[in-house]
Amino acid sequence: MSDIPTATLGRVVTYVRVLEELEAQNVQQASSGDLARRAGVTPFQVRKDLTYFGRFGTRGIGYTVAVLRRELLRKLGLDQTWNVVIVGMGRLGHAIANYPGASDYQFRNVGLFDVAPDVVGREVRGLTIQHIGQLGPFVASVAGTPRQVDLGLLTVPAEHAQAAAQALAAAGVGGILNFAPAVLQTQDLLVSTPTGEREVTVENVDFLAGMKRLAFYMLGPQTGPTEEST
Amino acid sequence: MSDIPTATLGRVVTYVRVLEELEAQNVQQASSGDLARRAGVTPFQVRKDLTYFGRFGTRGIGYTVAVLRRELLRKLGLDQTWNVVIVGMGRLGHAIANYPGASDYQFRNVGLFDVAPDVVGREVRGLTIQHIGQLGPFVASVAGTPRQVDLGLLTVPAEHAQAAAQALAAAGVGGILNFAPAVLQTQDLLVSTPTGEREVTVENVDFLAGMKRLAFYMLGPQTGPTEEST
Repeated sequence: MSDIPTATLGRVVTYVRVLEELEAQNVQQASSGDLARRAGVTPFQVRKDLTYFGRFGTRGIGYTVAVLRRELLRKLGLDQTWNVVIVGMGRLGHAIANYPGASDYQFRNVGLFDVAPDVVGREVRGLTIQHIGQLGPFVASVAGTPRQVDLGLLTVPAEHAQAAAQALAAAGVGGILNFAPAVLQTQDLLVSTPTGEREVTVENVDFLAGMKRLAFYMLGPQTGPTEEST
Repeated sequence: MSDIPTATLGRVVTYVRVLEELEAQNVQQASSGDLARRAGVTPFQVRKDLTYFGRFGTRGIGYTVAVLRRELLRKLGLDQTWNVVIVGMGRLGHAIANYPGASDYQFRNVGLFDVAPDVVGREVRGLTIQHIGQLGPFVASVAGTPRQVDLGLLTVPAEHAQAAAQALAAAGVGGILNFAPAVLQTQDLLVSTPTGEREVTVENVDFLAGMKRLAFYMLGPQTGPTEEST
């Protein structure tokens, strides 16, 4: 499970979304071709990607939608609840805190943080925005209750991203989803675990990167992303 | 240029960001090791990724930061202006319309659209939000002036994503950056070009996908994404 290419993981997340759409339409069986068409990839790609996660489906019949969805969710860790704090309650932080889809995936906002005096103290969806100085005590207060803070969402300006990420690591938050247009220096982001220190796991979400990729694709004769050459 | 893997393109966009940071710090030369460390990849990966874009750097000296940045920007199409419309002016649409970094990359918002009566007519950064029914006439009005609408950002709820994407395609917008948690059926998204119809180019930006990848990485013993097996 540990050597799954990033691009495969991204596509499997898309297959889960497709399976949810099929389930909502009461479709019970689907072929790799059905999944491929809806996910915008080839049937071969679907079958290859799924081999990383186990053996699914029956030749000539295809996949049982509900079973494949449930198994993929479990292997992706999406059958458990992940507690999330958001650091940076500007417009993007607010947009995410209010995003209706997040709770479907067991991502639960448990804390909201900012530094601006006119933002701290406001309430969003039942949570009061706290000052970033409260992050450490807050994370400590929920640890082992049996909740804990699993993930931090960074939605601060680029120039504050590294410092805010260090505050999250110092508070013991082991995973960061970084929306700031800055490359975090992960060697400086260390979190203590029962087995020693480790670097915080960082995933970058950059919608400008998406625009840049799109601009590049629109330059050339091709009309879309190419398949990975794996 | 047309067979660059998606993951490579994503990393090269990161290298550009790193080069900008170095330039801001008045660093003039950088090795593949310098770039790799800041981008969180291996030096070999940097060198391999750059071969898709040309021959850069001098053995033993490294890359000239300003030159490499300028060449990559040109090859990525980021030395030209891309006009953008945003469809869906909820919180996420507002967050993007107000995002300060976008204009650095020659992405210029030229139109904002929504359907809600209490949103249409409001002003955001000098642009008045228009009703989606005005999208076709608006795109036609700017075409060949010499501006045109290059990209559409979809920030509508998932259940309206396909219809809004079809409105963009019908209006002649050839590229869509999709933020809605829905897989767009691109075979139904056709845009007319001087050489015939083609499918709209779609890039998906899904912050839940980022959270899902992060959740997966945090399940296992590994602490981050693996390299592509290319």
